[in-house]
Amino acid sequence: MHTTFFSGGRHDRTANDRAEETLIAAWRADPAARFIPLWRGQHAFDRAGKEGGLRLLMPNRSAFPSPEAGLDRLPWTYLGRDAQGPIFSVDLDAHDAPLALLPPGAGPFEALRPLAPLLPDGEPALLAQARGMHHWRRTHRFCGSCGHALVPEQGGHRLSCDQGHLHFPRTDPVVIMLVRHGERALLARGVRFPPGNAISALAGFVEPGESAEEAVAREVFEEVGVRVRDVRYLASQPWPFPGSLMLGFHAEAEETALTIDASEIVHARWVTRQEVRDADPADFTIPDVTAIARLLIESWLEEA
Amino acid sequence: MHTTFFSGGRHDRTANDRAEETLIAAWRADPAARFIPLWRGQHAFDRAGKEGGLRLLMPNRSAFPSPEAGLDRLPWTYLGRDAQGPIFSVDLDAHDAPLALLPPGAGPFEALRPLAPLLPDGEPALLAQARGMHHWRRTHRFCGSCGHALVPEQGGHRLSCDQGHLHFPRTDPVVIMLVRHGERALLARGVRFPPGNAISALAGFVEPGESAEEAVAREVFEEVGVRVRDVRYLASQPWPFPGSLMLGFHAEAEETALTIDASEIVHARWVTRQEVRDADPADFTIPDVTAIARLLIESWLEEA
Repeated sequence: MHTTFFSGGRHDRTANDRAEETLIAAWRADPAARFIPLWRGQHAFDRAGKEGGLRLLMPNRSAFPSPEAGLDRLPWTYLGRDAQGPIFSVDLDAHDAPLALLPPGAGPFEALRPLAPLLPDGEPALLAQARGMHHWRRTHRFCGSCGHALVPEQGGHRLSCDQGHLHFPRTDPVVIMLVRHGERALLARGVRFPPGNAISALAGFVEPGESAEEAVAREVFEEVGVRVRDVRYLASQPWPFPGSLMLGFHAEAEETALTIDASEIVHARWVTRQEVRDADPADFTIPDVTAIARLLIESWLEEA
Repeated sequence: MHTTFFSGGRHDRTANDRAEETLIAAWRADPAARFIPLWRGQHAFDRAGKEGGLRLLMPNRSAFPSPEAGLDRLPWTYLGRDAQGPIFSVDLDAHDAPLALLPPGAGPFEALRPLAPLLPDGEPALLAQARGMHHWRRTHRFCGSCGHALVPEQGGHRLSCDQGHLHFPRTDPVVIMLVRHGERALLARGVRFPPGNAISALAGFVEPGESAEEAVAREVFEEVGVRVRDVRYLASQPWPFPGSLMLGFHAEAEETALTIDASEIVHARWVTRQEVRDADPADFTIPDVTAIARLLIESWLEEA
C-alpha cells in the first residue's frame, strides 16, 4: 500500500460528531480551537520554525482582531480535531483585503502547490480537506434542484435549502495512468499544463456508468488513440486542485502509434527508464513528489 | 482485473464528438437513433425475446407517437453509439402519465434492481450511464454558484448558466470493503437496507482530503469501531443508485470487538467461509451478483 502526498492526515475527522450542532458550537468557542484561513485558493503560512520548513497558519480565536466582528461572521467548516483541540477552516473569499481580518503580522496569502512539499506531515492532508470543502461550498451556494439558497449544517458537511433538498460534498474521481509498452512508458504534455517542459501520465475524469478501469482505457484511446489491456491499480490520492480523488494505474499498450487529440494533448512520447533518469530539464521534466504521477513513474523505474 | 456488473458497456461514448453540436443534432434526427426512456428511476423493458430474458426498450424516432409533440420536447442526453447507430436517453420525469409519450404497447415502467441480471451484456452499463446522467441533470437544474437556470450543452454532458459557470457530471466515489480477521470476515446490515436478512460489506463515501484507503479505515472505525491495516484494492464498479463509483477493497482487522454506530448499522457479525456457504436465508443472505460486495465475498471464499 503506497502512501501518497495530500493523504496522511493526522487529525481525526470525528464524522459522527458533525450532526451534534451544540457540540460543534461549543468547539467553535473553545479557546484552543484553531482556524485555517482560506482566501481565493491561497493560504497563509508561518515561517518562524526551523530553517527551510514552514507551517500552516492556524491561529486561535484570541489571536484574531475582534472575533465577533470578523472571525464569527466568516463561513466555516469543521475539519476535525487533534491532541491540541478542534480545527476549523474559515472562508475569506468575500473580502478584497483579507489580511485585515487575520491576526497582526499574518500573511501574505500564497499558492499551495510550490510550498506544499515544505509542510510538516499531516498538514497537506488537512489543507486538502479544507480546500475540497471550500470549493464545494463556493460552488454550491444555491440548490441545484430548486435554485433556492443553501444553508450549511453538520459542521458545514451538509447543505440544505428551504425545500428540504440535501447536498453532500463532491469529490470527482479521476483516473491517472502510466501506459507502458515493452521497456517504454508514455508521457504527455497536457494543453493546460503550466509553462515549462513538464510531461506526465495521462489522466481524465471517470464518467457515470463506467468502472475506473474502463475510464483508463477510454481516456487513453481518446487522448492518444492507443488501446490498452491489463489495467492495474497502484494507489489513490486526494488532489486539492480543486477537489479530486486520483486513482493511479499502470496499463499495457496494445500498440505504440499515437493519434493525438490536440484539444487535450500538446505532445506525447514513449520514453525509456534511462531517458527519464538522465532527462535534461531543457528537454523534459517529470512531476514533483506531490503528484501521484510521480509515484506511478517511480514505481515503474524501480522495476528495472 | 475483475469484471463488475454495470460495467462492460458495448457502446462507444465518442466523447470527442460531444462538442460538435451540429453532429449531435444530425444524430438525433437519424432514423436509426434509439431513445431510452427514463421515468422517475424506472425503465421500460421488452420481453418479446427468448424465454426468461428481457431487453431494454430503445425505440427509434418513428416508433414514438408524434415525435415533434413528444419526443423532441423531452430533455435528452447523448450516450454514445454502436453498430446500429446513435443512442440517447430521454427524461419523462415531468409527466404523470409517461406511457402516453411512448410507442403503443410499451411499458410498464419498472424498477431496475431486480431485473438487471436478466439484461443482455452491455445493457446494464448503458443504463448505468443513463441513470447517472439523468440523476445529475435532475439535481442540477440551477447553477450552484449563482442560482440561475442551467442549460445543457455538449450532448447533455455540460451545463452552463448565463453567467458562464460550467458544470460537469457528478460521480461519487464510494469505498466498499470486506474486513477480514483470521478465517472470518465482517458482514453487516445497514439501516437503509430493504426489508429482509441481507448482510453485506461495509461501505461509505470518500470525503475531500483523504485517499480511498484512508476512507476505508475511517468508515470501518466509524461504523464498527475496528482498526484495519493492509487495505487492498480489488475492483471498481459504476453503481447507478443513483450515481456512484464503487471502489472495492479487502482489509485486515486489528481487532474483533465491535462498537456499532446504530445510526448506520443494524447489526454486524464475523462469519466463516463455511457459514456463508451454508447460510440459511432465514438467518442471512449475501448480496446478489449485481453488487460488487458479492465479488469481494466470492473472492474471499475462493481463497480457501
